[in-house]
Amino acid sequence: MAMRIDQALVVTAADTLPSPRVHLGNPRTGATLRIQQTLIAGAREFLRAGGAVEMSHPIIGPVTDPGSRGAKQADIDYYGHQYKLMTSAILYKQASLLAFDRIFLVAPNVRLEPIETSSTHRHLTEFRQIDVEVAGANRDDAMALAEGVVRHAVTKVLVECAADLAILDRDPAVLEAFIREPFARVPHGEVVRRLRSGGYPQAPGTEIEWEAEELISRDASAPFFIAGYPKGSRGFYDKESTAEPGTLLNFDLIAPESCGELCSGSEREFEYAKIITRMRETGENPSKYAWYLDVVRNGIPASAGFGIGVERLTRWVAGLDSVWQATAFPKLAGVVSP
Amino acid sequence: MAMRIDQALVVTAADTLPSPRVHLGNPRTGATLRIQQTLIAGAREFLRAGGAVEMSHPIIGPVTDPGSRGAKQADIDYYGHQYKLMTSAILYKQASLLAFDRIFLVAPNVRLEPIETSSTHRHLTEFRQIDVEVAGANRDDAMALAEGVVRHAVTKVLVECAADLAILDRDPAVLEAFIREPFARVPHGEVVRRLRSGGYPQAPGTEIEWEAEELISRDASAPFFIAGYPKGSRGFYDKESTAEPGTLLNFDLIAPESCGELCSGSEREFEYAKIITRMRETGENPSKYAWYLDVVRNGIPASAGFGIGVERLTRWVAGLDSVWQATAFPKLAGVVSP
Repeated sequence: MAMRIDQALVVTAADTLPSPRVHLGNPRTGATLRIQQTLIAGAREFLRAGGAVEMSHPIIGPVTDPGSRGAKQADIDYYGHQYKLMTSAILYKQASLLAFDRIFLVAPNVRLEPIETSSTHRHLTEFRQIDVEVAGANRDDAMALAEGVVRHAVTKVLVECAADLAILDRDPAVLEAFIREPFARVPHGEVVRRLRSGGYPQAPGTEIEWEAEELISRDASAPFFIAGYPKGSRGFYDKESTAEPGTLLNFDLIAPESCGELCSGSEREFEYAKIITRMRETGENPSKYAWYLDVVRNGIPASAGFGIGVERLTRWVAGLDSVWQATAFPKLAGVVSP
Repeated sequence: MAMRIDQALVVTAADTLPSPRVHLGNPRTGATLRIQQTLIAGAREFLRAGGAVEMSHPIIGPVTDPGSRGAKQADIDYYGHQYKLMTSAILYKQASLLAFDRIFLVAPNVRLEPIETSSTHRHLTEFRQIDVEVAGANRDDAMALAEGVVRHAVTKVLVECAADLAILDRDPAVLEAFIREPFARVPHGEVVRRLRSGGYPQAPGTEIEWEAEELISRDASAPFFIAGYPKGSRGFYDKESTAEPGTLLNFDLIAPESCGELCSGSEREFEYAKIITRMRETGENPSKYAWYLDVVRNGIPASAGFGIGVERLTRWVAGLDSVWQATAFPKLAGVVSP
């Protein structure tokens, strides 16, 4: 993970999107979408084999995940009440453990990202996540499960999608090499040290910046986890370490080849009083979260889980320039499209 | 299909919803949701075996299906533009045939139904559809495919979900008998005649009323198709018969046991001029549909397709009183819930 600074990575021109006819009629799009479905099928296969039950969660509700790094929530008027489109399934994932010990879902999310993200090559305003939550699991369990899901899904693509990889000029040997070894687990502080020693001015104790993430992604020889982001950078539901106060028991999975974050997860806060405290610390008003706090107050299981970005995983596996190429009807911040 | 009138079917009291803890902690809910996932898995298996490619479609866009029988669309502000939550996937399904000849998806829809539907036992404001579209197919092909999907999915439940059916006191022999014979195909006019001769005042040349649909559903010995609804009752995308002007080449699939409509489908209008005419006839302003009409103007394949209501299919198969019991976090018109 040697670091180099490359200002050319800081893209400023907005992507433009092709028409549906041009995009859908492009054989590369067909190949990409078949690979995407194979990735989802592989994830489903792996998770079901591990005893997880698939679910469907709401796409609208009175409240949603507030922890979406600069993105705004979309509002709807629901019979006179302000509802939100889901930015992630987190609140429902925790509640769902009242029905099943291991759950997953493939769910759409809408995040009204800042307009400048339209040129990052890795933000969509509408995207899918493979969302997983496991009662009684800790962070290590969740990282192991995320690694298993990704390796199984990519392996399924290597086995079943040779023709599609060829259409995309994606060398299967390159892909295969990336998933051969176990994924490393690097503490957040160590990533900051490596970035700074490579000349990148990453501030310690904060979120890893986009450009920094792209740098470390570019130089990685395999997907790897960054573990233990500082408090303040993530949502109230990421559990704080008791051994290291100020550090969250969370992780991101970073793809190689400049693709950056594929997946975020954590051990969860599940105790009512701690959740209230964390909400207040993150500037959230607990009264907004009435249904969720009603559920939590009467006890929910300890758990850990994660969400894998479907289009980001597809972008990396298919070797695409931009994440919008990994969706049939792409939506970029500020761009009107179907 | 003998007809009886039963005023008790006209339910007026609103359903009340249990708390997430009570609903998700109920073993009947767990059994229902496992059956639902088995139905979806069965549909997926059958459709993939037939060469269909699964897709993900947007949940928001500049325009959506206007043909939703009294339901309102939910609006969001998308970077200063009014976007809609999808009421169905129809516009994207037709456009997707530019990429693949046979597609399907399992997609959420939001319809702000009139408040009185909260007590029909078969309306949700948020629900899923198994959506299918096939290039070059006609209405008979689509009905045969819908029948195949339903029979395969229900058979998979019979094979794999014996314990869950037992938790729900659902007799598998009853269910098995319903799918043994081919599903009948009854013209809309014939259904009207039977209703009227049974004493129900169904107006000819109009949509079948909810109460009438429940009546004919109650007395059915198997699922059956009603084919050829009159123009005016459905959206602009249902193709009009040239042999019988005023009649649409569409269908509904009606479940037995008072569960009513499970699925709607049709042969599609695909010619630009006809779509414009049908939009104007149904009171839609073509200028709203810019991206869709741009796609259509340059040619899309003739096609037929359908959408199967996931919660409605689950309600029938699991033998539930109400469709809200077939979802983890139910939403009824006018009722605030997670």
